[in-house]
Amino acid sequence: PVYVHNPHLDALKDDILYHFSLGTGSHNLAAMFGDVKFVCVGGSPWRMKSFTEFIAAELAMEDPKSEYPNICAGTDRYAMYKVGPVLSVSHGMGIPSIAIMLHELIKLLHHAHCTDVTIIRIGTSGGIGLEPGTVVVTKQSVDATFLPKFEQVILGKTVVRSTDLDQRLAQELLQCSKGLNQFETVIGNTMCTLDFYEGQARLDGAFCSYTEADKQEYLLKAKEAGVCNIEMESSVFAAMCKLSGLRAAVVCVTLLDRLKGDQLSSSHEVLSNYQLRPQILVGSYIRKQLKAKAGNR
Amino acid sequence: PVYVHNPHLDALKDDILYHFSLGTGSHNLAAMFGDVKFVCVGGSPWRMKSFTEFIAAELAMEDPKSEYPNICAGTDRYAMYKVGPVLSVSHGMGIPSIAIMLHELIKLLHHAHCTDVTIIRIGTSGGIGLEPGTVVVTKQSVDATFLPKFEQVILGKTVVRSTDLDQRLAQELLQCSKGLNQFETVIGNTMCTLDFYEGQARLDGAFCSYTEADKQEYLLKAKEAGVCNIEMESSVFAAMCKLSGLRAAVVCVTLLDRLKGDQLSSSHEVLSNYQLRPQILVGSYIRKQLKAKAGNR
Repeated sequence: PVYVHNPHLDALKDDILYHFSLGTGSHNLAAMFGDVKFVCVGGSPWRMKSFTEFIAAELAMEDPKSEYPNICAGTDRYAMYKVGPVLSVSHGMGIPSIAIMLHELIKLLHHAHCTDVTIIRIGTSGGIGLEPGTVVVTKQSVDATFLPKFEQVILGKTVVRSTDLDQRLAQELLQCSKGLNQFETVIGNTMCTLDFYEGQARLDGAFCSYTEADKQEYLLKAKEAGVCNIEMESSVFAAMCKLSGLRAAVVCVTLLDRLKGDQLSSSHEVLSNYQLRPQILVGSYIRKQLKAKAGNR
Repeated sequence: PVYVHNPHLDALKDDILYHFSLGTGSHNLAAMFGDVKFVCVGGSPWRMKSFTEFIAAELAMEDPKSEYPNICAGTDRYAMYKVGPVLSVSHGMGIPSIAIMLHELIKLLHHAHCTDVTIIRIGTSGGIGLEPGTVVVTKQSVDATFLPKFEQVILGKTVVRSTDLDQRLAQELLQCSKGLNQFETVIGNTMCTLDFYEGQARLDGAFCSYTEADKQEYLLKAKEAGVCNIEMESSVFAAMCKLSGLRAAVVCVTLLDRLKGDQLSSSHEVLSNYQLRPQILVGSYIRKQLKAKAGNR
């Protein structure tokens, strides 16, 4: 059963999931979401909509008449789509934005009495020493000092949380990619930062007080610590999913090799193709899992 | 002149503002943005579009044929609209999301050779001991321990930045609100947190390990430190605008009194009305400033 740890929730007559524009008083969450077994999350609302269309075709569940309406149409904070047992939710950019979404998603799954849910973040990232387009399945999410922890401030005090992810799920995803044989996939550590420019040693932000040599030294230290890619959500995602007992993985494609540059100067077509890769991998994984379950029945 | 501090930028042939889907190679930024004198930013893309329609009417610049196209239509990360000298940009939720936007906005203003730009964040917040609907103009942005600082991690090391805002601009906005006499406006400190639930002592997140009494104690300590409201972007906004020499203010309406509750349970109509208040105040301020400048010519 899912997945909250909050004794105060039972006292709420109506739990308003404000940033989803949903609530227990206004919506029958169990009827809407009770069958959810997979949740896929990613930064961009457009990408999460296209993932839903992709997964519908992958599961042969597409309905030509269906338009996959945005379940969170009452707000512009997040977008949410559902096809069969697969929920697709956007989370914006950065730790605070995904954390708000995950608090409300975890409560949603709890209120809907969901069980046995797997959650996968499909995203984009900068690679370190990898060919652009490589897919990284995260082993551990580490902070800007390469430590596997997430610091949560509660009542003004810092609480340290583990960023462990499900290692078996990561291995299953790697095996699935080997079976697909369409693009390179690796397992490695993912550095999660609070900033895209100075926080990731980029030389092309509005401010930069360090040299190219300083940048290279920092990124090579990250590489030595096992960091394969850099993004901005994995640490709090891992921490919150672990706390709530959700089986979780992070699957991000690298859009460039940060040792060779900072700007995303590949063509729109190339970048769009790269961004499909986590969707293809996770779509294939979900299809196999559902097929295996149907076979067991 | 605006506003970057980065010696590496001159070496870039083409500066791609990736999250805006704009660039110096693909767009004539000086022609598009050279006349900008006011930038208004807020979390929600819908709100920033409605602000643009509001300001067009306020400045009597509305064109019935105009639809105010989204200048960043090539991406779903941010939305951007322009009417006359007023630029309106969404920034998503949280420090990392607004920081990416500000890096690219500051570079945009620099590339467009803009001068004498005022930037105002118009947002929503939780109030402490204020009647819901009160507008707070931020004096200082403080962190979760009530200190006026923003910690930026650069190459794995923490750098502390000042969160000072323009005090004269804050006073001018307060005076403008007194002239309007439509709603209560105060000047006070704003606490900026990395999380909406545990980070703001809410009792209604997926996780909560503290009591109602703990929450009240923390919020009352914040109140004693001069905190009038809580939001999630002001500290990095203040720090980056100060570094780049932009005249900056934060104007947020309070949607509820956090001493009395956590959930946004007011009706949609009431909350929508509250959210208009920063727009009304800032719209009126911009109109007066432009009128005064026209008179000086």
